[in-house]
Amino acid sequence: MADVAVLGASGFAGALAARLIDRHPFFELEAVTSRSDAGRRLDELGAIDAAIVAYPHGAAAPVVAELHERGVKVVDLSADFRLRDLDVYQAHYVEHPHPELLAEAVYGLPERYREQIAQASIVACPGCFPTAAVLALGPLQTEHVVIDAKTGVSGAGRKATETTHFVSVDENVTPYGVGVHRHTPEMEQELGVAVTFVPHLVPLDQGELLSCYFETGEDVVAKLQEAYADEPFIELVDRPPGVRDVRETNFCRIHAWQDGDRAIVFAVIDNLWKGTASQAVQNLNLMFGRPETEGLL
Amino acid sequence: MADVAVLGASGFAGALAARLIDRHPFFELEAVTSRSDAGRRLDELGAIDAAIVAYPHGAAAPVVAELHERGVKVVDLSADFRLRDLDVYQAHYVEHPHPELLAEAVYGLPERYREQIAQASIVACPGCFPTAAVLALGPLQTEHVVIDAKTGVSGAGRKATETTHFVSVDENVTPYGVGVHRHTPEMEQELGVAVTFVPHLVPLDQGELLSCYFETGEDVVAKLQEAYADEPFIELVDRPPGVRDVRETNFCRIHAWQDGDRAIVFAVIDNLWKGTASQAVQNLNLMFGRPETEGLL
Amino acid sequence: MADVAVLGASGFAGALAARLIDRHPFFELEAVTSRSDAGRRLDELGAIDAAIVAYPHGAAAPVVAELHERGVKVVDLSADFRLRDLDVYQAHYVEHPHPELLAEAVYGLPERYREQIAQASIVACPGCFPTAAVLALGPLQTEHVVIDAKTGVSGAGRKATETTHFVSVDENVTPYGVGVHRHTPEMEQELGVAVTFVPHLVPLDQGELLSCYFETGEDVVAKLQEAYADEPFIELVDRPPGVRDVRETNFCRIHAWQDGDRAIVFAVIDNLWKGTASQAVQNLNLMFGRPETEGLL
Amino acid sequence: MADVAVLGASGFAGALAARLIDRHPFFELEAVTSRSDAGRRLDELGAIDAAIVAYPHGAAAPVVAELHERGVKVVDLSADFRLRDLDVYQAHYVEHPHPELLAEAVYGLPERYREQIAQASIVACPGCFPTAAVLALGPLQTEHVVIDAKTGVSGAGRKATETTHFVSVDENVTPYGVGVHRHTPEMEQELGVAVTFVPHLVPLDQGELLSCYFETGEDVVAKLQEAYADEPFIELVDRPPGVRDVRETNFCRIHAWQDGDRAIVFAVIDNLWKGTASQAVQNLNLMFGRPETEGLL
Repeated sequence: MADVAVLGASGFAGALAARLIDRHPFFELEAVTSRSDAGRRLDELGAIDAAIVAYPHGAAAPVVAELHERGVKVVDLSADFRLRDLDVYQAHYVEHPHPELLAEAVYGLPERYREQIAQASIVACPGCFPTAAVLALGPLQTEHVVIDAKTGVSGAGRKATETTHFVSVDENVTPYGVGVHRHTPEMEQELGVAVTFVPHLVPLDQGELLSCYFETGEDVVAKLQEAYADEPFIELVDRPPGVRDVRETNFCRIHAWQDGDRAIVFAVIDNLWKGTASQAVQNLNLMFGRPETEGLL
Repeated sequence: MADVAVLGASGFAGALAARLIDRHPFFELEAVTSRSDAGRRLDELGAIDAAIVAYPHGAAAPVVAELHERGVKVVDLSADFRLRDLDVYQAHYVEHPHPELLAEAVYGLPERYREQIAQASIVACPGCFPTAAVLALGPLQTEHVVIDAKTGVSGAGRKATETTHFVSVDENVTPYGVGVHRHTPEMEQELGVAVTFVPHLVPLDQGELLSCYFETGEDVVAKLQEAYADEPFIELVDRPPGVRDVRETNFCRIHAWQDGDRAIVFAVIDNLWKGTASQAVQNLNLMFGRPETEGLL
Repeated sequence: MADVAVLGASGFAGALAARLIDRHPFFELEAVTSRSDAGRRLDELGAIDAAIVAYPHGAAAPVVAELHERGVKVVDLSADFRLRDLDVYQAHYVEHPHPELLAEAVYGLPERYREQIAQASIVACPGCFPTAAVLALGPLQTEHVVIDAKTGVSGAGRKATETTHFVSVDENVTPYGVGVHRHTPEMEQELGVAVTFVPHLVPLDQGELLSCYFETGEDVVAKLQEAYADEPFIELVDRPPGVRDVRETNFCRIHAWQDGDRAIVFAVIDNLWKGTASQAVQNLNLMFGRPETEGLL
Repeated sequence: MADVAVLGASGFAGALAARLIDRHPFFELEAVTSRSDAGRRLDELGAIDAAIVAYPHGAAAPVVAELHERGVKVVDLSADFRLRDLDVYQAHYVEHPHPELLAEAVYGLPERYREQIAQASIVACPGCFPTAAVLALGPLQTEHVVIDAKTGVSGAGRKATETTHFVSVDENVTPYGVGVHRHTPEMEQELGVAVTFVPHLVPLDQGELLSCYFETGEDVVAKLQEAYADEPFIELVDRPPGVRDVRETNFCRIHAWQDGDRAIVFAVIDNLWKGTASQAVQNLNLMFGRPETEGLL
């Protein structure tokens, strides 16, 4: 048994993380705080072995730093420790409050960094779009990729805005963040290629589909089969998947199509699950030497 | 030609009213103001013959009063002049800023007060639920009625709140305002019977369905047929209607079912059209001696 | 361990039942058949201890009869054994193929017939609307009740029809089965009062809300609290619930409002879970002496 | 005045075409037939000046041929006369019943073939995706383009199938027709470049968004502004449009983004309006020398 706190559980992702820990056979949900508790001293939390931090970028890093100093293993859901290059982070987000910890943090995509995660004390959970993008394209060679994403509204968070108003979303599809979305540098860091990334808001609550277009000299299906033969949460399928196929699961379902040099890879995940909260639990499983799928099937 | 201003056109209803006036063959859209212009002096508006006022209750009455004083015909979309009993108004809304004008105002349901509206200088456009309820039940005799309404989200207005967040509404149905909704006294004023009214929020943008349950000794279908034989915007149909049947129209579609003393009347309208903005235009047509359907078919 | 077969798992309810049995700690999913296998001899199924039958009414009874003869405990999801009065069944459905078994069957609402279910060899799982209606009103005294239900589309089954076409449902709310819905006699059997029941199709996939209007001399909240103090799957709440609150759970959430003699009770369930498949598992738990909540939390 | 028949008005597109003709100030809706009337002799139609044919591909050509022989001007909504290369047509559809008429037909995109349409006796209304694609990209130079489309369900037609079942579409996004969609050769014919086209089904009833990714040496915004300066139905906008912006209109709204050689053009139309039925009326306006926007604003 290990005692886990979820900090910032008032948002969609934090609330789900708390629920997943609560029903996990090994982890014990020791404490839950909302974002408005942020000022509360962390040492009121009691003795915990690990924490999932669900604060906004910039606000997360100081909390992660304090937990780290106290010897608590941390999975951070924010962007604060995902980008290895400080300048890139600061260009897209804010001044980094704890750059000295960047070297400690491991990028929390288990299918890519399983062994490092098992040894890590700070794991930076990937963004939801980079999770699907890196799973779709990580094993492949290309020089440039167009990633056209379609996402549900929970990805925009719980805040009530004109964008999340039912009447704005209903019967609508809208591109946003064209050319400037913050997940682009994260994809480029992991993929090592130039990415043209455009997310589109569609009228559903959770789930996302990435359609990735690129040129390649490889046999895409063969490379993906080889890479993912033993992965418990990756499903290669022989026809295009829908986001509903993986709703409320930690699975990523992938389909590849190729005609000569032109290839398309489709990937679907639940943005709140594999894209955030259940992937956090997958990381915690690794950090505590548990079976990777524990509490997630 | 008559020159019309729409005041408060930033909300859903005001914006639609402006669009309907703009494409109307007789009325000219002379001016449009948003709610934040409320402080702007009305005499900057220029010479207008009529105005549609789309301000919130309490804020509408002073504007209506000033327009009235200047000889402008007014259709008010707020609740300020709908309730003839000042005490009832003040119990459900705020202190009334211009009670002396209550006697001037006519309740703007053309199917019921056509002649008075034609002579009126102030017309109080009914609430969306009372519009459907009074059309469904006005011609009938009963002592008590249960009105179970299902409404789209635009009825809650353009304001971004937890209630109107896509994720709150999507895949959900929720009752609200149980026992306290402000449209109840308006229905009771017009129907003269006790009303149990419960609206429910459903995941669609516009449209509402009222299911009205009551006991009666009359032949409901016969009474409705008699009452509505010549109405241009009332359609009696022989099976239960869906809200989609009247989407973006000024029609009210009604179906009645009866088994002995027990009866049910279903009525559907578009809450932004017949429930608000197009009904305002129907009223203006009457006030200016135009064909009642002009600009609305 | 007990071996369970799910017969007719190609529909929504049967598929979910198979999934719930598959992940249940005590039951073993021994066999799954689709409806098109109906002709297949049941003795090819191998040795099973229990079966969940998800065939259409009329088609279910012969299968239930054969299983019963072989000593297999059966939970039947169809209407074939819900109505104790053969004439009422035959008036609303078809000629009953096995009326001699009606006396064997127990109505599978655990909150009402827990002890009989534990001893039963045939359990007739209630319809989804009667489940919510009887939970909402069973403990109360009244003489007549209006039940206005709002339901998602999965209740109409997996068959592609004009009714279930996306464009028919989207941005729509429609009453159906007015005065003739087959769940009415089932409600009347259990409640012992006259019921006016109208279901409405709303644009969501699963879940249903019942708004029940009636007159009573009792204190409704007190009676419900007393009846449900120890029920593991009934939640009395102090404000109106939404269907999303119980999505993909076996819970029924209930709220009561009262003003003098007039009362309203709202109840929400997931029509595929508590309304069908998870209630079947709750029944199986009782029939095998397992904890009632096993595999359902 | 000109008398118009709409043949095949039982589908979504034909029904809308009939409605638009019915309210058009110049055209008179002389006759309407459903697809099941297909056998009915056309000469029962009476004297008509023009017809909109809304039959499936293959079934349309013989009807068009007969009307053409009788001197009736025809706008055909099917694919039968869109592809100038008979072999391409026959590779993607069926054996062509009237290849001799291909040379008579004009591709009915007014923004591209306005003058030819004005002289034509047969106009082949473009597919909905090619309409948006050619409007977005027609004025531009490139060598290859990725077109990622998101479309509502009405594009799949009125037929009830597993694909159009509410529960299949709701909370889902699914790619389909990957690499084989029949609109691809139509786009390639008009654009003269290789097209990678993938449509995705999203949970809304009507409307479509195309996101077009390509490389170019031109100034995309400048070229589009130049091309569309005087177009009544093209709106160039400075931020990404949503499909809701053009709902139930004949407008195409376009936004371009460029970073060096990489460009993205977004285009939204209503698939049933500009994508089919209202574009048919726009074509008829041209064929009869009427103002191009008549009956469409």
